[in-house]
Amino acid sequence: MKIRHYQDVPATNPLPGVKKRVCIGPDEGAGNFILRVFDVEPGQASPDHAHPWEHEIFVLTGQGAVRDEQGTETPFREGYTLFLPADEKHCMINKGSDVLRFVCIIPTGVE
Amino acid sequence: MKIRHYQDVPATNPLPGVKKRVCIGPDEGAGNFILRVFDVEPGQASPDHAHPWEHEIFVLTGQGAVRDEQGTETPFREGYTLFLPADEKHCMINKGSDVLRFVCIIPTGVE
Repeated sequence: MKIRHYQDVPATNPLPGVKKRVCIGPDEGAGNFILRVFDVEPGQASPDHAHPWEHEIFVLTGQGAVRDEQGTETPFREGYTLFLPADEKHCMINKGSDVLRFVCIIPTGVE
Repeated sequence: MKIRHYQDVPATNPLPGVKKRVCIGPDEGAGNFILRVFDVEPGQASPDHAHPWEHEIFVLTGQGAVRDEQGTETPFREGYTLFLPADEKHCMINKGSDVLRFVCIIPTGVE
């Protein structure tokens, strides 16, 4: 059993204004899926991108929107869950004035 | 893409004082892992149990503890992540005076 606060996990900066913490992954023995926590600063977003694996997301705090392949933006906030299937183009955008924080789970071995 | 607030997912009561919401599962197209949200009322707990699949947990709110096979209780609160490997005995306990709420991910197909 491995227990720790997510803030005790060292963060990387995969993009400007974005912090990524791999809280439960292969280093912890997770063989099937990986739990990450992302902090997105106001005004920041992920690129519009797609990949052959799914995201399962739980929004912890903040105001955001996800943009799909057609450019449609769907808003979300704390308590929302998002299922983004494999190969579906998406972009996570912070639409608020505070940090957007979410849990994002992916299969092990894809990154 | 499927987006909804976790409270819009119908809850079941697998145990007294426990609500379970399957927010992202096979019905949403999740083929690899399932995202559930549990609410545990004050004074309530899961049984001491084990199963041949892992849990990955993010604690959303409340004060809790997890009891291991030796009976040792490790406390946690909002923002903690827990990795419970397959076959490891565990019991999730609400130790506070408010609801204990957490996200718990399991592989698809085990329940």
